[in-house]
Amino acid sequence: MSEARRGRSTDVPTLVEQAREGRPRAVARLISLVEDASPQLREVMAALAPLTGGAYVVGLTGSPGVGKSTSTSALVTAFRRAGRRVGVLAVDPSSPFSGGALLGDRVRMSEHSSDPGVYIRSMATRGHLGGLAWAAPQAIRVLDAAGCDVVLVETVGVGQSEVEIAAQADTSVVLLAPGMGDGIQAAKAGILEIGDVYVVNKADRDGADATARELNHMLGLGEIRAAGDWRPPIVKTVAARGEGVEELVDALEKHRAWMAERGVLAERRLSRAANEIETIAVTALRERIGGLRGDQHLAVLAAKVTEGTLDPYTAADDLVSGLTS
Amino acid sequence: MSEARRGRSTDVPTLVEQAREGRPRAVARLISLVEDASPQLREVMAALAPLTGGAYVVGLTGSPGVGKSTSTSALVTAFRRAGRRVGVLAVDPSSPFSGGALLGDRVRMSEHSSDPGVYIRSMATRGHLGGLAWAAPQAIRVLDAAGCDVVLVETVGVGQSEVEIAAQADTSVVLLAPGMGDGIQAAKAGILEIGDVYVVNKADRDGADATARELNHMLGLGEIRAAGDWRPPIVKTVAARGEGVEELVDALEKHRAWMAERGVLAERRLSRAANEIETIAVTALRERIGGLRGDQHLAVLAAKVTEGTLDPYTAADDLVSGLTS
Repeated sequence: MSEARRGRSTDVPTLVEQAREGRPRAVARLISLVEDASPQLREVMAALAPLTGGAYVVGLTGSPGVGKSTSTSALVTAFRRAGRRVGVLAVDPSSPFSGGALLGDRVRMSEHSSDPGVYIRSMATRGHLGGLAWAAPQAIRVLDAAGCDVVLVETVGVGQSEVEIAAQADTSVVLLAPGMGDGIQAAKAGILEIGDVYVVNKADRDGADATARELNHMLGLGEIRAAGDWRPPIVKTVAARGEGVEELVDALEKHRAWMAERGVLAERRLSRAANEIETIAVTALRERIGGLRGDQHLAVLAAKVTEGTLDPYTAADDLVSGLTS
Repeated sequence: MSEARRGRSTDVPTLVEQAREGRPRAVARLISLVEDASPQLREVMAALAPLTGGAYVVGLTGSPGVGKSTSTSALVTAFRRAGRRVGVLAVDPSSPFSGGALLGDRVRMSEHSSDPGVYIRSMATRGHLGGLAWAAPQAIRVLDAAGCDVVLVETVGVGQSEVEIAAQADTSVVLLAPGMGDGIQAAKAGILEIGDVYVVNKADRDGADATARELNHMLGLGEIRAAGDWRPPIVKTVAARGEGVEELVDALEKHRAWMAERGVLAERRLSRAANEIETIAVTALRERIGGLRGDQHLAVLAAKVTEGTLDPYTAADDLVSGLTS
């Protein structure tokens, strides 16, 4: 039996086959291999490559409190009703904690926990540069290869990391709620660049119409769109009661159809793959720098910069020359 | 006259000398050279290196709406009263817009605009990886070399980028406000790892005591601290009326003194310099990859990944081998 366990821990082809059959433990193990940057990661990715490309990836972003988890859960219900297999990846770029930080979300998602057609996973990263941008696309690949028709990627907040995650999605949904911030705040968050579909959740609250109106106005202030360009719709929902969720699913399907028709989906996926490759390459280069750091070279350079006897650019030149020679 | 202008645009030693004298235009031009990644940037940094290290760098982070700009402005007033020269860097990691997005902040800071002892600058980045982490430390160096005794670095939100910015500060201040989110939200934001000093602003509002109590409880749940370790204080303020701001300044001074006494300040600055060097090195490597992307190599790799005929790791190996050979 311990042999069988060892077998399971190293037999990537079997693990991938089991994940394809939708076995949640196999999916969980593959994502763990991704998160832990296992030595087997390359083997996993090579095995998954021919199985990917079938999933429709939807990103959900928004400030804490807008109801992202509730909305994600409501979307899962809607997609399940339509017979789709759904994967949920709840990513938390800023948390130094592992999964526990997302306990609240997990609780809210618990209604789907016994549904074999739904796979839910929380990911937290330790805040190192490239950490999330590197791990999330690989986890999406696992869910994609495991036969999910739809992968919902939920991120906390709308910061730089979230913008990067949004770049991983076929369709990006930005959620707002009444009273969560004025126009300047929304502009600050840079949300007008990343949304394909906007949701004003908690639409039964005061100020929902004003929020939608202001958002509509701001979207209109953006660059002039060519005829036939996608104009992001604004959907009002009360996700906790399931209201407006069918309209949201409709908006997603429309965006997907529009992208497919215009060749935008293929373009986005090419761009996504390019970013993914680049991020892995940069991570590998950083690791090599880390190796140099290990030999105290970087510490010596840093001491000189702190003393003012060396500027950081000359120090960086020194570091890079050690790397590429 | 046009010759003089040309002279000003290229004469880095003169520009640095003028910045040292506190001439705001020279400071502004130097920061612009940083933001634009000017070809003269290396010359600027080499000239600034021996002039840096005098400024006390304080980072301020917190969700939109907690009153960061108002608190920053109140801190400026307090430090000016104490005769300190103050630099303010308002950074916005997520905004795809240039300075305009921070208009609201600028308006709130306008009371200091005619004070020659205060230099205020907004920075926005285009959301590319390493963008802000790369530019902000260089801008801090400019303000440091220009003779600022205190540099306040204000960031929007508490995401990965903000955590990186916090790593640039000698002391990190995390701001909260009553009713901005419960404990899970705070944990999500990862704020318990980064704060040296916590502020509950808008302390005249309902729930301020509860927020402070909950925060205190959460800080207590963190790892057990060794005797003599810094226990982050929680300061209640009403920044808009200047209430509690002297207490905040006291808390900052105490933290600074504690760091100096324990050698923590030197450690942090060494670590900061190491990160700065590493980030510049990675940015340089990314630019080289960008050069490769320009020759369509990355696009070809991305197409293969999208088709499933190549996995992203093997593609990244290919890219890196082109870079380092």
